[in-house]
Amino acid sequence: MNDLLLRTLAGANEERAPVWLMRQAGRHLPEYRDLKAKHDFWTLARTPELAAEVTLQPLRRYPLDAAIVFQDIMTPLPGMGAPLAFNPGPVMDAPIRDAAAVAALRVPHQDEIAPFVGEAIRLIKPELSVPLIGFAGAPLTVATYLIEGAGSKDYPHARAFFRTNPNDAHALMRTLTDATIGYLNHQIDAGVDAVQLFDSWAGLYPRPLYETFGLPYAREILQAVIDRGVPTLAIAVGAQHLLDAMADLPLSALSVDWRTPLDQARALTQPRVTALQGNLDPTALLAPEDALRREVRTTLRAGLGGPHVFNLGHGMLPAASPERVHALIDEVHRFNRHNPSEHGDSA
Amino acid sequence: MNDLLLRTLAGANEERAPVWLMRQAGRHLPEYRDLKAKHDFWTLARTPELAAEVTLQPLRRYPLDAAIVFQDIMTPLPGMGAPLAFNPGPVMDAPIRDAAAVAALRVPHQDEIAPFVGEAIRLIKPELSVPLIGFAGAPLTVATYLIEGAGSKDYPHARAFFRTNPNDAHALMRTLTDATIGYLNHQIDAGVDAVQLFDSWAGLYPRPLYETFGLPYAREILQAVIDRGVPTLAIAVGAQHLLDAMADLPLSALSVDWRTPLDQARALTQPRVTALQGNLDPTALLAPEDALRREVRTTLRAGLGGPHVFNLGHGMLPAASPERVHALIDEVHRFNRHNPSEHGDSA
Repeated sequence: MNDLLLRTLAGANEERAPVWLMRQAGRHLPEYRDLKAKHDFWTLARTPELAAEVTLQPLRRYPLDAAIVFQDIMTPLPGMGAPLAFNPGPVMDAPIRDAAAVAALRVPHQDEIAPFVGEAIRLIKPELSVPLIGFAGAPLTVATYLIEGAGSKDYPHARAFFRTNPNDAHALMRTLTDATIGYLNHQIDAGVDAVQLFDSWAGLYPRPLYETFGLPYAREILQAVIDRGVPTLAIAVGAQHLLDAMADLPLSALSVDWRTPLDQARALTQPRVTALQGNLDPTALLAPEDALRREVRTTLRAGLGGPHVFNLGHGMLPAASPERVHALIDEVHRFNRHNPSEHGDSA
Repeated sequence: MNDLLLRTLAGANEERAPVWLMRQAGRHLPEYRDLKAKHDFWTLARTPELAAEVTLQPLRRYPLDAAIVFQDIMTPLPGMGAPLAFNPGPVMDAPIRDAAAVAALRVPHQDEIAPFVGEAIRLIKPELSVPLIGFAGAPLTVATYLIEGAGSKDYPHARAFFRTNPNDAHALMRTLTDATIGYLNHQIDAGVDAVQLFDSWAGLYPRPLYETFGLPYAREILQAVIDRGVPTLAIAVGAQHLLDAMADLPLSALSVDWRTPLDQARALTQPRVTALQGNLDPTALLAPEDALRREVRTTLRAGLGGPHVFNLGHGMLPAASPERVHALIDEVHRFNRHNPSEHGDSA
């Protein structure tokens, strides 16, 4: 097994950065689009054989250092009593905006939230020679969707809810946290080697609100994962104002979005966070190959101050071409972190 | 004339914070919705009598310390040869994505870009006893719309364009900068008392890109305004990673979005920036009145470290009720910045 990712997450400053790419499985791959033409997203996610196939597709094509389970952060919600559709983003059958709706959410046994996820993991694991990353949405982000009811530019109902109904909000966070710990234990039992928490919408919130409703619950979940001996990753997008707070989370690596150069992120978060993950702008994959390679090197150089997991600073765009993804990975492979000066141009 | 805003922008640390609210004119007002039922947005914006009426509506209802011209940041584009519709956000007839499209943009004489704006300003000014704020979109933000062609969650085409076509991008910035300086001079000649530059999408970009394509052009525009003796304001949204860079702009006040408490923003930007503007979360207007008043006081306290223009941290939401806006303004009026400890609860 290629354990470069796990060594890096354990704090080793390796010669080469491990590389995987958020949304490496999905619409940028022709073989995914072929499957998607035959099955809707929920069918792909809920059918273990199909979810396993989609998870494995990028691994067959690219020499990646990790796979990530193909699911959505909203996957556990229907099992908790909150049905939703994908259209294409998640749309709740009913938004959750009062105490009764919060109380109606269930916390099923860990193996009954989304049993198809564990089944998919058990199908994937024997096919892999790299670690498999499981994941969940952070409660603050999942609640943001639940309260708003659907995707939105800036989620005004969710932001108002936390301010107006702090007791209901804490009750909702409690339920989501308990369910998320169960859902991740289910994934760990099935065999995932690391866990990433996606707090995609945390950046919408002012820091005091994040520290009240986001940080404590994320900490509890990540600590539960760490207590299982499994390394942890977390990302929030557009959350430059929260990076310093997030550094207090029990993280093996903090994932940084494309806006903040890794050296600046490291200055903000060291010594609490050892390893960083990130953070090439996904639109760099739309640029000519030489420009892409230059930006990959710039990202690698900015990551030299400590352990670094190379990744994008946000999910892959559907317009990214597999040829460019190959070039990206090749450039990461060529870069010797113990002898960076040998790599051509300076940043 | 009530010149509290202008004294604050000149650096005076007044006993009371002046207050105006981004998008104070518009959909939250029943009298605006009545007009909008009869006229589309472009008609309201392009008919001087109607634009003046909409600008004045919030001033009749609320004791605000400034008015802001009712227009859109895309207002000057059709006059430059880039037609667009509002649906309801701006939608370009054709996105601008190559050198030919950039070269086709014109820089008309300053009074021929959007002459109806100057006419509206001349109608508004005699009706006002407070300063009138003119505005424009910053070139980086306007270019983001032009390249993408319409609103988007994260503008991948625009982000890729700057990386892939730096020469075309600089040419586009040059044209937008020249036109914007003309457009603002037109507004200044017509009588505006201050100017705000809206760099609404700057926060999408990593700091090195902002420093290449955003900052120099914004600086040139703001300096041209300052050179006319007119005070300057600027805001970027979701741009916490750029605040320190923006502090180098020639600004009378830097406007901060709702994510970063003003005391933290001040620590990042002093002593280069004297005054700050902001930054109550607009969703606070959806909360119960006592919660709203508490948050207003928290914002006022965070602003005590220097001159402070009270505002929202983003545009007013259509769901905000006029009663809550009254409460917000009343709470700002009650707060004595020279004796803040008399105001009940602590932050």
